[in-house]
Amino acid sequence: MSYRVWGWGGPADEPVRADLLALGPTLQDAIGVQAQTPLTPAPDPRLPASRRLGSLPPSLRALASDDPVDRARHGIGRSYRDLVGAITGATGDVPDLVLRPRVEQDVVAVLDWACDQRVPVVPFGGGTSVVGGVEPRGLDAAVSLDLSSLSGLVEVDEVSRAVRLRAGTLGPDAEDALRPHGLTLRFYPQSFERSTVGGWVATRAAGHFSTGPTHVDDLVESVRAVTPSGTWESRRLPGSGAGPSPDRLLLGSEGTLGVITEAWLRAQPRPASRWAATLAAPDLATGGRGVRALLQAGLLPATCRLLDPAEASLTGTLATGEAALVLGFESLAAPAASDGELALELCRGEGLRVLESGGRGAAGQAWRSSFLRAPYLRESLVLLGVLVETFETAVTWDRFDALVAAVTAATRDALQQVCGGGRVTCRLTHAYVDGCAPYFTVLAPSRRGCEVAQWDDVKAAASEALTAAGGTITHHHAVGRDHRPWYDRQRPDPFALALAGAKAAVDPAGVLNPGVLMS
Amino acid sequence: MSYRVWGWGGPADEPVRADLLALGPTLQDAIGVQAQTPLTPAPDPRLPASRRLGSLPPSLRALASDDPVDRARHGIGRSYRDLVGAITGATGDVPDLVLRPRVEQDVVAVLDWACDQRVPVVPFGGGTSVVGGVEPRGLDAAVSLDLSSLSGLVEVDEVSRAVRLRAGTLGPDAEDALRPHGLTLRFYPQSFERSTVGGWVATRAAGHFSTGPTHVDDLVESVRAVTPSGTWESRRLPGSGAGPSPDRLLLGSEGTLGVITEAWLRAQPRPASRWAATLAAPDLATGGRGVRALLQAGLLPATCRLLDPAEASLTGTLATGEAALVLGFESLAAPAASDGELALELCRGEGLRVLESGGRGAAGQAWRSSFLRAPYLRESLVLLGVLVETFETAVTWDRFDALVAAVTAATRDALQQVCGGGRVTCRLTHAYVDGCAPYFTVLAPSRRGCEVAQWDDVKAAASEALTAAGGTITHHHAVGRDHRPWYDRQRPDPFALALAGAKAAVDPAGVLNPGVLMS
Repeated sequence: MSYRVWGWGGPADEPVRADLLALGPTLQDAIGVQAQTPLTPAPDPRLPASRRLGSLPPSLRALASDDPVDRARHGIGRSYRDLVGAITGATGDVPDLVLRPRVEQDVVAVLDWACDQRVPVVPFGGGTSVVGGVEPRGLDAAVSLDLSSLSGLVEVDEVSRAVRLRAGTLGPDAEDALRPHGLTLRFYPQSFERSTVGGWVATRAAGHFSTGPTHVDDLVESVRAVTPSGTWESRRLPGSGAGPSPDRLLLGSEGTLGVITEAWLRAQPRPASRWAATLAAPDLATGGRGVRALLQAGLLPATCRLLDPAEASLTGTLATGEAALVLGFESLAAPAASDGELALELCRGEGLRVLESGGRGAAGQAWRSSFLRAPYLRESLVLLGVLVETFETAVTWDRFDALVAAVTAATRDALQQVCGGGRVTCRLTHAYVDGCAPYFTVLAPSRRGCEVAQWDDVKAAASEALTAAGGTITHHHAVGRDHRPWYDRQRPDPFALALAGAKAAVDPAGVLNPGVLMS
Repeated sequence: MSYRVWGWGGPADEPVRADLLALGPTLQDAIGVQAQTPLTPAPDPRLPASRRLGSLPPSLRALASDDPVDRARHGIGRSYRDLVGAITGATGDVPDLVLRPRVEQDVVAVLDWACDQRVPVVPFGGGTSVVGGVEPRGLDAAVSLDLSSLSGLVEVDEVSRAVRLRAGTLGPDAEDALRPHGLTLRFYPQSFERSTVGGWVATRAAGHFSTGPTHVDDLVESVRAVTPSGTWESRRLPGSGAGPSPDRLLLGSEGTLGVITEAWLRAQPRPASRWAATLAAPDLATGGRGVRALLQAGLLPATCRLLDPAEASLTGTLATGEAALVLGFESLAAPAASDGELALELCRGEGLRVLESGGRGAAGQAWRSSFLRAPYLRESLVLLGVLVETFETAVTWDRFDALVAAVTAATRDALQQVCGGGRVTCRLTHAYVDGCAPYFTVLAPSRRGCEVAQWDDVKAAASEALTAAGGTITHHHAVGRDHRPWYDRQRPDPFALALAGAKAAVDPAGVLNPGVLMS
């Protein structure tokens, strides 16, 4: 299957066989997993002709593609399941058509047609879902609604520091458009290069900054969406107490209540002052107490990534067997260093050791490069037969140590049973006054042909453990189709009824991303 | 009508005739409105016997009261409409019964009975609604569900700094219970003395701190509510991205989706460091630019109340004809003064003048006393024939100056027409990076017997103006029955459908606070 279908980057980023053969022998030392003979991606898919093209009115035909590669690309996200499926040619369900609206009115026309014909519509932003959000799993003849042409900056309000962006705008394009105005969204999910404004809002994405505005929820001033029952557009407001927030119902709705076409997001100037440090803690639990001390003292570090000893070593951040805390403060006006120095004092009080402070040193830089390289590196690992995936949660501080222990143990046990071994590492990605978001990485040898089944087993064990330990099934990866069983148990039953009632009222034909969040 | 029905305080706080006669002559100078002969409150109501008592099962009879004063008290909130109505004996609709559950299971039993008998249930916390939230307007034989006995602190998690409180807990009782744990909710709406945890959550109340966590939304970790379809309880989580937030749908639901019985709220220690200042600005617009500069520099003043010249004078804060900015910083660890000094520098740059800084001086103290005294003073003013009421909104900064000008003009015109004169003052109560919450006070001579009709006309004119100027119909006073017409126009139509669909699914008999938010 060509890189166009499963690749994170452009054609030049596709791992080549020679590089894979060179990388292979280093894996055992680097990540503790033996490389296998590199996989050769399957040939591009031959899909049956679309069953839906004929039913499109002429006005929508111009927006439609039934090209097999295009359709395959829109049937997968970017999870390990997706990658290994595409590479081995075991694509799951694929949309019948890809529709690319050029203007918002096209979205209205697509939904009109879809409701009339009862065709499921799966909204598609950058296709970076890692939870089965874009795959029309089990849906009959769905269409993928690709919003990439509805992109760009529409309006800037420099006085209120808010910007109106079309849903299909990619992260880098949003930043390029804001730069001349001296503004930035300061929102960098790891998928930043490939994900879109609309996708962020629909999935409650989180950026890589650890505190303060973490989820895009905090940046949203107003959302505009097309629904089968008309346009859902909230008033631009800095705050309101007029009934339940309309925006908060769209945030996280994952395409089930409407197709988001625009959002007003809060922006800001670039920070005037920066400060960074890296610290070492004897273990993750001690490091966690340090992070908690910072947050509960009212500090809001921009970066506050705590890596367990294995992950600190794996990312090249710290090779001493200690946990590493990568800390950064940014400020628009006040000097960032004063908060930084206070943070060091609090961390020392909790038993952490300062490795470098002031600017980003070698350790901090190593962590950052590793973070940015991860989506690319993962493709090579998958090709070399490594099961590599992540999952994440959030939990209150009182349950943090127990959750990490239980989830790590359950995942390790599952890896042992399913893969005969493997590693589980943990970092803490986001921190709050009352808790934090632990993020786990799994590396294990996969068995050819069984990769997806293996991961499904491990993921189920991990999800059971984190649910039992009081965590959420996802802090910022969304629910999609993969998290449904645990999501259903986590949410209050009457809320499930309310959500289904809301959907039935807005989307009576049930065409919007069926199977996600609700049956 | 006895003070028990309409009074803010206890019997000792009831304005006595001698005091009113002494206060009267000072009004013209103090607030520019001539006092009238003090009203004599109407006698206590004689209500027809309850039509519902007989249909109650014996288990619920023990929770029920059909005492006329009790019923009258539960049929009014604390708006000018409510006060003047009660004082003049023109009570509106009154609940047939007051039911006081002692344990959560009683709430379940009440809803079972209400659904079976199709009796409207109006949840009642402290009865401080200023928007017609507790009055069973136009409802046939409604019952008031008074949650005051479901009160108290249930659990404290000192590690995560979160506390579980029953819905009926009053503000001061919550603080008393948290004090031994070294914690505070740091949430002080002006109704603090009389309002409850459940009421705050149901109405998206805001505390008097101006920035940072303003609405109770920001403090909520989890909510528990009884619905006709079962218990709605979210998981305690510091953050989550698992679908739309269940809490955010209950926040602001005003009793229409469930009866809130408990909430986990984030708490914190008392601040270690405080700093205060009072500044003068030539006018409100200049002061607004100062406030915007602070927020957009990343500063989060605890107090940031900007008073227009009339309100500065009225509250005794500043009598120079300038606007006053009452500023305060608090900090848990870092010295608050460093942010404070930076704030002064930014404000000076915008043309403000520092009057006092460091601690709370005479001007700041005057403002604070006036704020705390307001609900008590208002009762005397109403008795002296003054139309006295407030309304509030929020708007993005780009529209702030125009909104204040348009709303002030429209309200003044309406007062001139309806009351033959009167005053409108404005303060800014809450500030955000992208906007702020202007809060208006109206003082005018009322015409005996026409008070409610007069206010309704003025309020309609003000609401039209603020809606047209881009504001929200309420920043933190909720929607209730009074704001419905403008709320209906403000919210997106598909969201109205979604909300009605959610309600129909959770409350199929439609017994939960009908007429509020939805028909």
